Amino acid sequence: MRKFVVDMMGSDRGSSMTLEAVKTYHRLHPDDQLILVGRKEEFAEASSFAKLVNAPDVIEMEAGALEVIRRKESSMVVAVHTFQEEHADALISAGSTGAFLSAATLILKRIPGVLRPALVTGFPNLGRGNFVTLLDVGASNTNTAEEIQQFAYMGSLYAEGAYGIQKPIVKLLSNGSEEGKGSPVGKEAFALLKADSKVDFQGNIEASQIFAGSADVVVTDGYSGNVMLKSFEGMAKAMGKLMKQGFSKNFMTKLGYLFAKSGIDTIKDTMNPKKVGGAMLAGVNGLVVKAHGNSDTESFVSAMEVASRLVDAKMIEKMAAGFAKAEQQ
Amino acid sequence: MRKFVVDMMGSDRGSSMTLEAVKTYHRLHPDDQLILVGRKEEFAEASSFAKLVNAPDVIEMEAGALEVIRRKESSMVVAVHTFQEEHADALISAGSTGAFLSAATLILKRIPGVLRPALVTGFPNLGRGNFVTLLDVGASNTNTAEEIQQFAYMGSLYAEGAYGIQKPIVKLLSNGSEEGKGSPVGKEAFALLKADSKVDFQGNIEASQIFAGSADVVVTDGYSGNVMLKSFEGMAKAMGKLMKQGFSKNFMTKLGYLFAKSGIDTIKDTMNPKKVGGAMLAGVNGLVVKAHGNSDTESFVSAMEVASRLVDAKMIEKMAAGFAKAEQQ
Repeated sequence: MRKFVVDMMGSDRGSSMTLEAVKTYHRLHPDDQLILVGRKEEFAEASSFAKLVNAPDVIEMEAGALEVIRRKESSMVVAVHTFQEEHADALISAGSTGAFLSAATLILKRIPGVLRPALVTGFPNLGRGNFVTLLDVGASNTNTAEEIQQFAYMGSLYAEGAYGIQKPIVKLLSNGSEEGKGSPVGKEAFALLKADSKVDFQGNIEASQIFAGSADVVVTDGYSGNVMLKSFEGMAKAMGKLMKQGFSKNFMTKLGYLFAKSGIDTIKDTMNPKKVGGAMLAGVNGLVVKAHGNSDTESFVSAMEVASRLVDAKMIEKMAAGFAKAEQQ
Repeated sequence: MRKFVVDMMGSDRGSSMTLEAVKTYHRLHPDDQLILVGRKEEFAEASSFAKLVNAPDVIEMEAGALEVIRRKESSMVVAVHTFQEEHADALISAGSTGAFLSAATLILKRIPGVLRPALVTGFPNLGRGNFVTLLDVGASNTNTAEEIQQFAYMGSLYAEGAYGIQKPIVKLLSNGSEEGKGSPVGKEAFALLKADSKVDFQGNIEASQIFAGSADVVVTDGYSGNVMLKSFEGMAKAMGKLMKQGFSKNFMTKLGYLFAKSGIDTIKDTMNPKKVGGAMLAGVNGLVVKAHGNSDTESFVSAMEVASRLVDAKMIEKMAAGFAKAEQQ
């Protein structure tokens, strides 16, 4: 039995979407305990299977990181406090990334030793039939070389814990695979990573090679990581749209779609970051998952599933133990 | 009749690939004059339809920007000089980006007024059924806000000249669509662009929205632009691979592929930056096109086609006239 706290407000689609999502999740995992935070009257029907916590204020998508400090009545801030007080296993929100990250970091604090939290997500690794872990995909706007270096360790602990990869191969995102390529901060991080015995660092990687299998963990600053993630999303959507157009071209192609359906129907979703679901905010004291702001029911459920797998993998305990060990060295 | 100079060496696949490509291009455009530079003995058979210029040295893919200065016998440097001496219309190379850009900039010089050249490429704009112009996709590693501001004007001239778009809408790549988002240099560029009457600047755009149609030109620094371009490439390749797997799953899906072939076969290629072909180095005195280092015959021909369209559009004349006008203001 897992215990979830869900911020019901703050997504682009409002509480009707999150209500559908928690109903679906409850059907799939009836034993899990759900605590839903927000304007109770909007999701009162969930009281039959979940605990409801009222929070009258909703933080807007455009809200900045500092705004949360004074929005104590907001569903997001109340959700973080509830998560802490209830000793819950996971906390999920689709609200403003900046606001959610600062609320979680301020209230829950960082794991000792962590310089800066990072948003972590996993993508299918087509080369190895496994997953590749990417971070930071957008918690920060700029990072120091030391922070990027630490993301490598954080990402390695994630890859081990979430995907069972022993001694994960770490690469650094760059604009060329050779040493000496990269942004100024990337070049600094390269030097630090080369000397870091805690991780298996194997050099630079270009974004075009991420899915090809040569790396288990790819680290970068939060700005570049966010550009990469959203570029993946844009191309996945564009190709999905083109596929749809291609199949609806004429009678023959429509027939072809019916025959090939079983093989191709899940492709778009497999590779779409929006559909893949949530990104964990690694480095804070607690399992905090950010769902896409524009989530639909399916992708919000997917974010909850990501959270449930990370709970089962004891990700926070492993992350904390890893940093405690590193601090002793 | 167009006059092309082609650096036959320096791609990952060697001169056998470029030889096939120029043969194909010659069949498609028998009136165009081709001048081929490199180790003549490797492509001697092309002498029946092209002029061959010998250059014994080949600049490696890993070569840096400074290396070209002392590699006077290299096909790349000889190609740039030949282009200038022959008053050719376009110059194409698949060699090291850094080396090619510095050779072209050093020898051909910048158009007066240009702060820094940028690599420019176009992508299908699915929202408008037109093209979206992206720059810089990798000429620089870092850019100043003033350079990014100027890319907006350069990109607008490109979108007008290459795609016939009047008063193109310019957006700035960012990690959020709201004002105030972005990298430190991006935020500075935002302020400059807002005050720039030469371009129709309409705010920030996320990489996930590039193909959706709200912008005709998207500007960014060369590092972020390169990450974006290579992310598009990685996702396009990954989805292409998944489509192939999906269609070969069983007899029914294979049959489906046969029926749908006409509709879906070109999707992967439409969106793959590698297949889309070349990127123009905008801002230098002469039409210089960089083909993908890992080009196959098809994508190198595509780069030559990009060049031929830009020749026909009188892109360099328009770029120079645009900057001359801006300088007078």
